[in-house]
Amino acid sequence: MKYVLAGLFLSVSTAAMAAPGDFAGRWDVAVREYGQKNYYLPMQDGRLVITVDGERATASYNRLTFSGSAEKDTIRLACMDGGSSCGNLTVRLNRAGLLGEGQLLGIPVTLTGKRPVAKPASATVYDFEPKAFYPFFSPAIAPALRIFPGDSVKTRTADSRGQDRDGLPKAPRGNPQTGPFYIEGAMPGDTLVIRLDRLRTNRATAYQSNTISTNALLPSYLLAEPKRDPQGSAVWNIDAAAGVASLAQPGDKLADYKVRLQPMLGCIGVALPRDETFGSGRLGPYGGNLDFREMREGVTVHLPVFQPGALLYIGDGHAVQGDGELPGQGLETSLDVQFTVELVEGKTLGQAWVEDETYVMVMGAGSSMDDSLKQATTGMARWLAETYGLGQAEIAAVLGTAMQYQIAEVVDSEYNIVAKLRKDVLAQIRR
Amino acid sequence: MKYVLAGLFLSVSTAAMAAPGDFAGRWDVAVREYGQKNYYLPMQDGRLVITVDGERATASYNRLTFSGSAEKDTIRLACMDGGSSCGNLTVRLNRAGLLGEGQLLGIPVTLTGKRPVAKPASATVYDFEPKAFYPFFSPAIAPALRIFPGDSVKTRTADSRGQDRDGLPKAPRGNPQTGPFYIEGAMPGDTLVIRLDRLRTNRATAYQSNTISTNALLPSYLLAEPKRDPQGSAVWNIDAAAGVASLAQPGDKLADYKVRLQPMLGCIGVALPRDETFGSGRLGPYGGNLDFREMREGVTVHLPVFQPGALLYIGDGHAVQGDGELPGQGLETSLDVQFTVELVEGKTLGQAWVEDETYVMVMGAGSSMDDSLKQATTGMARWLAETYGLGQAEIAAVLGTAMQYQIAEVVDSEYNIVAKLRKDVLAQIRR
Amino acid sequence: MKYVLAGLFLSVSTAAMAAPGDFAGRWDVAVREYGQKNYYLPMQDGRLVITVDGERATASYNRLTFSGSAEKDTIRLACMDGGSSCGNLTVRLNRAGLLGEGQLLGIPVTLTGKRPVAKPASATVYDFEPKAFYPFFSPAIAPALRIFPGDSVKTRTADSRGQDRDGLPKAPRGNPQTGPFYIEGAMPGDTLVIRLDRLRTNRATAYQSNTISTNALLPSYLLAEPKRDPQGSAVWNIDAAAGVASLAQPGDKLADYKVRLQPMLGCIGVALPRDETFGSGRLGPYGGNLDFREMREGVTVHLPVFQPGALLYIGDGHAVQGDGELPGQGLETSLDVQFTVELVEGKTLGQAWVEDETYVMVMGAGSSMDDSLKQATTGMARWLAETYGLGQAEIAAVLGTAMQYQIAEVVDSEYNIVAKLRKDVLAQIRR
Amino acid sequence: MKYVLAGLFLSVSTAAMAAPGDFAGRWDVAVREYGQKNYYLPMQDGRLVITVDGERATASYNRLTFSGSAEKDTIRLACMDGGSSCGNLTVRLNRAGLLGEGQLLGIPVTLTGKRPVAKPASATVYDFEPKAFYPFFSPAIAPALRIFPGDSVKTRTADSRGQDRDGLPKAPRGNPQTGPFYIEGAMPGDTLVIRLDRLRTNRATAYQSNTISTNALLPSYLLAEPKRDPQGSAVWNIDAAAGVASLAQPGDKLADYKVRLQPMLGCIGVALPRDETFGSGRLGPYGGNLDFREMREGVTVHLPVFQPGALLYIGDGHAVQGDGELPGQGLETSLDVQFTVELVEGKTLGQAWVEDETYVMVMGAGSSMDDSLKQATTGMARWLAETYGLGQAEIAAVLGTAMQYQIAEVVDSEYNIVAKLRKDVLAQIRR
Repeated sequence: MKYVLAGLFLSVSTAAMAAPGDFAGRWDVAVREYGQKNYYLPMQDGRLVITVDGERATASYNRLTFSGSAEKDTIRLACMDGGSSCGNLTVRLNRAGLLGEGQLLGIPVTLTGKRPVAKPASATVYDFEPKAFYPFFSPAIAPALRIFPGDSVKTRTADSRGQDRDGLPKAPRGNPQTGPFYIEGAMPGDTLVIRLDRLRTNRATAYQSNTISTNALLPSYLLAEPKRDPQGSAVWNIDAAAGVASLAQPGDKLADYKVRLQPMLGCIGVALPRDETFGSGRLGPYGGNLDFREMREGVTVHLPVFQPGALLYIGDGHAVQGDGELPGQGLETSLDVQFTVELVEGKTLGQAWVEDETYVMVMGAGSSMDDSLKQATTGMARWLAETYGLGQAEIAAVLGTAMQYQIAEVVDSEYNIVAKLRKDVLAQIRR
Repeated sequence: MKYVLAGLFLSVSTAAMAAPGDFAGRWDVAVREYGQKNYYLPMQDGRLVITVDGERATASYNRLTFSGSAEKDTIRLACMDGGSSCGNLTVRLNRAGLLGEGQLLGIPVTLTGKRPVAKPASATVYDFEPKAFYPFFSPAIAPALRIFPGDSVKTRTADSRGQDRDGLPKAPRGNPQTGPFYIEGAMPGDTLVIRLDRLRTNRATAYQSNTISTNALLPSYLLAEPKRDPQGSAVWNIDAAAGVASLAQPGDKLADYKVRLQPMLGCIGVALPRDETFGSGRLGPYGGNLDFREMREGVTVHLPVFQPGALLYIGDGHAVQGDGELPGQGLETSLDVQFTVELVEGKTLGQAWVEDETYVMVMGAGSSMDDSLKQATTGMARWLAETYGLGQAEIAAVLGTAMQYQIAEVVDSEYNIVAKLRKDVLAQIRR
Repeated sequence: MKYVLAGLFLSVSTAAMAAPGDFAGRWDVAVREYGQKNYYLPMQDGRLVITVDGERATASYNRLTFSGSAEKDTIRLACMDGGSSCGNLTVRLNRAGLLGEGQLLGIPVTLTGKRPVAKPASATVYDFEPKAFYPFFSPAIAPALRIFPGDSVKTRTADSRGQDRDGLPKAPRGNPQTGPFYIEGAMPGDTLVIRLDRLRTNRATAYQSNTISTNALLPSYLLAEPKRDPQGSAVWNIDAAAGVASLAQPGDKLADYKVRLQPMLGCIGVALPRDETFGSGRLGPYGGNLDFREMREGVTVHLPVFQPGALLYIGDGHAVQGDGELPGQGLETSLDVQFTVELVEGKTLGQAWVEDETYVMVMGAGSSMDDSLKQATTGMARWLAETYGLGQAEIAAVLGTAMQYQIAEVVDSEYNIVAKLRKDVLAQIRR
Repeated sequence: MKYVLAGLFLSVSTAAMAAPGDFAGRWDVAVREYGQKNYYLPMQDGRLVITVDGERATASYNRLTFSGSAEKDTIRLACMDGGSSCGNLTVRLNRAGLLGEGQLLGIPVTLTGKRPVAKPASATVYDFEPKAFYPFFSPAIAPALRIFPGDSVKTRTADSRGQDRDGLPKAPRGNPQTGPFYIEGAMPGDTLVIRLDRLRTNRATAYQSNTISTNALLPSYLLAEPKRDPQGSAVWNIDAAAGVASLAQPGDKLADYKVRLQPMLGCIGVALPRDETFGSGRLGPYGGNLDFREMREGVTVHLPVFQPGALLYIGDGHAVQGDGELPGQGLETSLDVQFTVELVEGKTLGQAWVEDETYVMVMGAGSSMDDSLKQATTGMARWLAETYGLGQAEIAAVLGTAMQYQIAEVVDSEYNIVAKLRKDVLAQIRR
């Protein structure tokens, strides 16, 4: 269930020494009920912007706009949507920042706010050597590095078994992640934009399981197969100079079989809404183990922000991977990674999407093939509506003639089908 | 359930005037139980080849080989698989051909056979003007034309509403098909190979529904949409000279929107096994309403044969179509079609597959997205095993690095996901 | 796609000798386009009822009502739905009956009609010994017996392998059906009601496969299982007097294992719409291989009529069956069957439903578990709306507190999940 | 992927003062790699039982048995499975307990162990007033109460909106849970057994959404429905004395509609493996939001233990609920609950199951209807194999004749289909 927050009253009283003008500007606030998040409220943490003009005050929070009066040390704000209102707050300014209490939609809430950290004048390029790796997308892990929009990070990822560029174990197996990176200023409702500036293999070998996932095969085929070795794995040699990989022990049939390298991140994701902690084998609107072979050097990734700071995780590098990630793995290896982050405030598609020079690509992470198809198509339809203002018939015309799907993976906890549109097709649509 | 026909006795006695040598050669036979087909037998109609050498006779039927003795007017054939046998037949040669009775796997069967029609010395190119169109893939419709392997047919297809190149109605709406074409000599267990020599739009307009199928959208999106017009349809202008289509009444946003033509057959299929008659909106191992946008001029289609003569149907032309056929339609229009058929005897993948210059593509017609994925992947795994003799680990190595999927359509009675491998990748595999 | 037939003009002219009054009354009509059915018209065969009152004429066809003028030998009928009309017909009465031509929804149609066969004064109980069995639900098979609403039929069914009460083979295996029974007067849009008066096993043995369908087991379980015998089957002894069945060769663990008999019809169905012919392993809105263990003596079955005469088929008896029909079979055996048919004219739920003393049960035949769930729930929601006039919130209140599901089978070409409501619950709802 | 731990060497050296005998007995141990859990090891926390007999030592851990030699302050243990071994440990006894390091399956591990808390002589009945409620199944929340096997707890649950028996809000909405309860001695690989001794409504009202979940309805029905009110909810009056509930504002049609109370827990679950934290709307092998209407007073629940102490959560009471939980809710209300816990050591089905007087019921929590069916059926097949030693054909015989399914819910993050067998049927199977 989701509440539609129809209106909201905010009554904010200043601390003893405060003047109305001290309230003005941006606050990063936390709204709580009985000291806990209420996940049915539209946003538990967010960006409150207050304007004070003499005795008048206005504010915005999430998609809501408020107006009210600023008294000596109190600001009374009412949010009217149509003709209904909701709640009140008694607030003080203390040394920690903004403090409020009252009710929201008839529910008792408290509000605390503090000033955002100031962004430096120039961007920084960090060289980040990971000390620890975490097999989670979690809001509960302390940030490994705090960066600002515009900053870049050079770092590296361990392979899915936890081994680094030297083949030395650094973490238990299971897609251990580099991060989390805290992006200053990022708030729920924003979009975190990550440009993958550089993505390269950094060692001479990879490995891949040598059976196809049962998710992708008919039961009749499974029953007729020879006995599987669940641990069976093949070593691949990576020739980075030549840009190809080949089996270390190919046998006769595949003696000439070479695969062009296309290094990619299997995992890129942020901390989840609702404070869930998911293992790094999962994926969803937050990204995660997307296992999409177009997640390559040069692409730009758009992820919804669900937690203050977003908390970005990356890992699970593949030297190359086929559609579907059928063996449950790509050519698993460690990677050198450099990325740059940006922030789009107050706007989000609500699911992960990626663009390169040729395509806009919306991830459809779903609990089944069917759900994944619907997530991807719906996401693309929404993207067209939001970007170009297209209506129902226009969306049908464009998707009916130009939709492309790519099946990223079918072997993880969730499926990922990707909806794609060419940019030269999109260039024909008038905004 | 499927019987594994472990062995088979055939005891064949000649007609009064017959000599053993008269039995020799190929017979097109029908095997019946109580005058009906038993669909659990491996083949109810097929190709029986008898060799007579003095008093010894051998025969092959389906994948079975027999040996036995030829007496005056009787040939006794035994098929031993391991150490078990099955049945007997008393047969005569009469004017109609071969006649037998006896039992098979303990079941009473009768057998009738006749000599195949002789193939002409040279191939024919037919110009076939369809007189009627049928909205079925059915074994029960009389052939519109009988052709031989090597022959070509120039013909045309009506659009999905039954209108021809002049926009005049020729059949009720619902994917009316051109055909069926009876291919002389085609027998269950064979593969019918159809090369699409020419495929062109032949009129100036097409139409496409202007809503996206509910199969591809989340329920939450459906509930938020404006009210749909289930009959809503847009007219598209086809500019064959320029090779593009555009909306007849595009509105402002899509005023510049042009789509490159890629004429394709939505339907290509043969009569079903088990004597079912399916409407032309369905698809399956027999092909049918595959709605695959790569079904274009120049491709070669491989279909399993399930009925004597195969009975080929074509229809449902699209000037162009996106992946998924999301509006439930491509740009629906009539087409000029020329195709050439060939026959591969006694060999079949059991499902439809297509090749062009770049790809081998296996159709995964399934009852759900999940089933379709499994049909496609399993089909490609089997194709690799049959074509190159690859084993489990080798198949995983190839599909894990090179598999590509294309989602053909998600809006028909069944889904179609296609598994694809590049031919330059396949060229690296040793046979 | 389905057309909503918004309005309809019928212009009917009488034959030379005809008077307006000769048109009056009921006609069984066929509406064709280019001599073929147009399956997108709301009904290709139906019941046209004409009333003539001086120079005024009215008519009903399907859910449409017409009004117009009766001239000497012509009746002009216009169907206005809101403010739009559609077409015209020129008709004669000849010896064969009603003849018309004109257009409908802008489409050229012809209409032929004849008087229905008169129903006898009293009902008949037939003793029908089947001569042939058909593994299909098909409109193309000649009726084995023509009966009237109110009539009863005593007959029997062969088992799924085609063996009768004496264990003698009468048809090839594959759910051979008894019938089809043509019910005089039944027309598309009606509901055929079948009361199963008597349903008893008639021999001492049954058989059941001894592996569970792969549809119902996790792949990991399949891979760990011992090698399956696809032909593996167990014989069960039926003790009709004691009302139990037990394994003929039970082994030690199941030496005491007895199952209470609950004889049921695996198959009960009518010919399909759209003139498709489906094998008797399939199921759908027409019923078919429903494999529902409550299809027992005493229940009343409601099936939509899709073809003139409905064409009822029954077969595939089970001495007893578990939910899901997990081995792909119940205890397969031959049955003695007696049933009585009734007809509800002009009203249909559009899918099969069943009632016994305790429950109303709506069949959800679907292409996947998910589809089946939706078919069943939607069918029950519609049944509540049609039977009691309940609205959205009332349906939620009833289904939210009282819905029961039963999973009939998960092993056929389609799935069958059944939605059930207790009659004592329903008795609390005011009509 | 799951490792099969083929063998294991444990080399344990005692602390300075330790004698071999000091090692003897049970240790609760934690096995870590780089200070983290390796979730691919068969168990990261478990019960190590060491026996010392002079210079010989044996041990068991998980399903492994070890043998080795006990030296002065060192015990060398080898686990051979077939003929392969794995690793070594150097261990000391210090004040905190057991300390080891070495390798396992070639992976560097450390081991720490401590003595289990002693169980009191007699069981305790706790009266537990919850201070806080948590909308999670999480290993990261501090236990609210520590109890021993045999102990009972009287407590209560808030409704799904966080309101208690007085209708006062105690927690934000979203299935807030009572607990977690730490069960002393419970270890991964065990089964936690919870008997629901008492389960009663404790206030006069409940509420239920008044629309049916889109998961259970066909898209065509959704598009035809009147506009939904996503917040729409109906109040129900609970008459505990009469044992019925009825709508507070029923309207005319449902004025007489009464529902028999059947109070149940929507949520009962333990902390997840892999240290994931899931919201309390989810379900899985750990139980959780099972929404099964048979989770009533008197039943016994069996849950796998995945974390030391199990960490039991309960919540989301329903006064009554239909199959499927179609409105996304039962009659949501607060409950008085009393339960008693027991522990089965070293044995688990790996998924939740429940028994009452009549049935054994295995929960099939799955990501789709299809997955859920397979989870339930496979779970029941495994339960039969483990409980009675039945083989493939025997399982088919029993499930083919006696399986019953119940669809618990289809509206949560995962689906729950339940496989059921009657105990009187099971009583016929010889162990």
